[in-house]
Amino acid sequence: MFPLRPMSTPPEQQMLARAIDGIMRSYAEHGNINHLDGQNLPSRAEVEQLLDDLVAILFPGYFVRDQLDELTARYFVGERCARVLRGLERSVARALSESGAPARPGAGPSDGGDIARRAHQLAIDLIQAIPGIRAVLDTDVQAALAGDPAASSAAEVILSYPGVQAIAVHRIAHELHRLGVPLIPRMMSELVHSRTGIDIHPGARIGRSFFIDHGTGVVVGETTVIGERVKLYQGVTLGALSVAPNARQLKQRHPTLEDEVTIYAGATILGGDTVIGRGSTIGGNVWLTRSVPPGTTVALHNPSLRFSSGGSEPSTTPVATGS
Amino acid sequence: MFPLRPMSTPPEQQMLARAIDGIMRSYAEHGNINHLDGQNLPSRAEVEQLLDDLVAILFPGYFVRDQLDELTARYFVGERCARVLRGLERSVARALSESGAPARPGAGPSDGGDIARRAHQLAIDLIQAIPGIRAVLDTDVQAALAGDPAASSAAEVILSYPGVQAIAVHRIAHELHRLGVPLIPRMMSELVHSRTGIDIHPGARIGRSFFIDHGTGVVVGETTVIGERVKLYQGVTLGALSVAPNARQLKQRHPTLEDEVTIYAGATILGGDTVIGRGSTIGGNVWLTRSVPPGTTVALHNPSLRFSSGGSEPSTTPVATGS
Amino acid sequence: MFPLRPMSTPPEQQMLARAIDGIMRSYAEHGNINHLDGQNLPSRAEVEQLLDDLVAILFPGYFVRDQLDELTARYFVGERCARVLRGLERSVARALSESGAPARPGAGPSDGGDIARRAHQLAIDLIQAIPGIRAVLDTDVQAALAGDPAASSAAEVILSYPGVQAIAVHRIAHELHRLGVPLIPRMMSELVHSRTGIDIHPGARIGRSFFIDHGTGVVVGETTVIGERVKLYQGVTLGALSVAPNARQLKQRHPTLEDEVTIYAGATILGGDTVIGRGSTIGGNVWLTRSVPPGTTVALHNPSLRFSSGGSEPSTTPVATGS
Repeated sequence: MFPLRPMSTPPEQQMLARAIDGIMRSYAEHGNINHLDGQNLPSRAEVEQLLDDLVAILFPGYFVRDQLDELTARYFVGERCARVLRGLERSVARALSESGAPARPGAGPSDGGDIARRAHQLAIDLIQAIPGIRAVLDTDVQAALAGDPAASSAAEVILSYPGVQAIAVHRIAHELHRLGVPLIPRMMSELVHSRTGIDIHPGARIGRSFFIDHGTGVVVGETTVIGERVKLYQGVTLGALSVAPNARQLKQRHPTLEDEVTIYAGATILGGDTVIGRGSTIGGNVWLTRSVPPGTTVALHNPSLRFSSGGSEPSTTPVATGS
Repeated sequence: MFPLRPMSTPPEQQMLARAIDGIMRSYAEHGNINHLDGQNLPSRAEVEQLLDDLVAILFPGYFVRDQLDELTARYFVGERCARVLRGLERSVARALSESGAPARPGAGPSDGGDIARRAHQLAIDLIQAIPGIRAVLDTDVQAALAGDPAASSAAEVILSYPGVQAIAVHRIAHELHRLGVPLIPRMMSELVHSRTGIDIHPGARIGRSFFIDHGTGVVVGETTVIGERVKLYQGVTLGALSVAPNARQLKQRHPTLEDEVTIYAGATILGGDTVIGRGSTIGGNVWLTRSVPPGTTVALHNPSLRFSSGGSEPSTTPVATGS
Repeated sequence: MFPLRPMSTPPEQQMLARAIDGIMRSYAEHGNINHLDGQNLPSRAEVEQLLDDLVAILFPGYFVRDQLDELTARYFVGERCARVLRGLERSVARALSESGAPARPGAGPSDGGDIARRAHQLAIDLIQAIPGIRAVLDTDVQAALAGDPAASSAAEVILSYPGVQAIAVHRIAHELHRLGVPLIPRMMSELVHSRTGIDIHPGARIGRSFFIDHGTGVVVGETTVIGERVKLYQGVTLGALSVAPNARQLKQRHPTLEDEVTIYAGATILGGDTVIGRGSTIGGNVWLTRSVPPGTTVALHNPSLRFSSGGSEPSTTPVATGS
């Protein structure tokens, strides 16, 4: 066996000290990617805790170790709401402070007291929005149950469907985005993107009874508008046509899906002027950059395939591996 | 600096109290997404612990901090199996209780004692299945080593290949699914989906020497049947043709891949009647909804591309961004 | 209610003991997937801690709970570098020991002292590389800010963009790969693949100002070469043409992207001889296996779609679900 920790000798100490000096110089030189002004930022761990508490309030009894009943639920929800309130106040204040946004629209440069008051109000606003969010999530869970022949109970759907997780978090993040909270909504959407592979920008507006099945690779852009009873499968992109220099000025860069639209796996729909009419069905892998009227079915036309026999691996056939 | 926690004033306390009342009313109104009957559900944290213990038993010495040798392995495996037994008993009993499934097929409404006995037996059954699962996983690890030119050792493959993680968890989840355990198998498959981007329904039947490379975006549906020595790349869907109203009644909604089939990245194969014959190769991005005989190679036919010079970003070319 | 832990009876104890015997026999039979030689491997938890410490040093003030300023940063970076040094020494020594690589190129079979010295030197080498890595990451963060109209601040990009996380980890993993450290770089790349859905092999060479937007499903192969100011979107594969038996011998199996190339979502570019010329734009879903000259725009030619009215779900249209 070998000694895992060699004795530290003076030349080694000098080598480490010199390396640290180099890193300190790099902090001075590349200040853009430092955050050394002595102010706290909202941390990922804090935002994750907030999100988990909020989800536990949205689906009481599903994501806590202690069993809940009608009696204990009242104390549970009180304790969690108080914790969420304090956590949100702290994180939102840090986000407002970092972004330098005025504490009230139209206000002048904001001082600390303003920021604290505004953060408190925003936290209360979110907690007051919970019953409304729950009413919509109820329709989303029903949509998952109705939309997947493999689903067998509300418990299964709530505990194990990534699409349900993603829409629950989106409805919270969207509310915070709508209230004008900077930074936190994007941190929330990225947390659930990391867990589910579903990337919904907090700005997207999504109607009731929304269901995403499987979900990995789904991207829903910032200015997307989605009606009621819409269903998406894995790998669907609702995106922008291109990143034009004036993209930031465009009012809507992403498509509109009217009620009862279904988009199958791998389809891509692009552009702020693209409207998919009510009740339409877009087939898998379709690439669409213009509007279709209500009740349209779009599918790939005779996907042209080449068949040959001889199962040995073809040396000239393009096959995709990353290996 | 600003005071992060404003003093709590009576009006503020009332505002929070009113918000909590609103949430309690919403629990009464939208009972579908509550779980307030005082019963515990299997929790995600518990199922994650179970899965990590099981994986540590399947690959001894790879996923524990203490080094193991032939002597210590015996005590390690004894301790872990005892822990897994108790954990499984608890979680399976909760899942059986929640799902209301009869404790024995054909039995009447089940009482607590029945459920506990059945949960104990199912936990023992899973532990007894471990040697058989290990024998198959040995072939899966060999397939990964043989199939990826970038792979350099069994250790690398076991420690860092998402495809190996996904198939190890699937073989456990499938065994539980086969034994008739509700809820837990889906929670396990979603945990590893979250970690790897690979979504395999616990119902899928998969033969020896199975390898998925990269894996993000792979979807394998509930009634898929996969032979031996099959290889999949990232973004492959083995899915259903459509969600027909009678889908729940269909015996097989997803395809069959015979032995030695390779499916390259982004290909989609759909339908319960679709059989990919032994030794066939399906090229990347192919979309296939019918059977092919053994030894067939399928590729996209001359993918039609438009080339133009002038590298500036085309304003009229559809390009997919979500930004 | 039911008793959750049934009393353990002698027959039950025997059943568990027999099951454990079966697992021990399987350890003897399928030794390929054991690691029972009494040596430690680098553990995932250790590598994750290392990576999180390194990222905290790269972006000071962003990923720690305590606020940092110019004064405290010095102590922070000293403490973290010392911890990273010891952690790297330990993990790298284990990886060298496991892989049986000679401690110095050209050296004979290595003993423990050699390995410890080499591990120490490699750890120092990585820490010394940090300022250089930071200089490049500064350009990557600027590229994200410039490339996404939805991005509003460096803080937002650093805290919540998966593409920035992925490239930061890649630049560390690539440095370790370049220094000849086995196993650890792949464990790092898989950790960030699990978190972001972006799978970049540590061997890939990537120039400054690199940006991946959304990112889920991106695969960048081992021998890929990428110039400066390159932009990728979700689902892009830079892969090999096929896994030929001699693939391990090929010098370059993956494509080259010259400076200022943009590849939109879902495009696939394959082959070691494929060079995408400077300033080219590859449209979404394009499948490309040959070189294009500088300044080329490639797009799908009239994607052929079939439109029909009647929005009811088509029974004969292939749609992709995994359900």
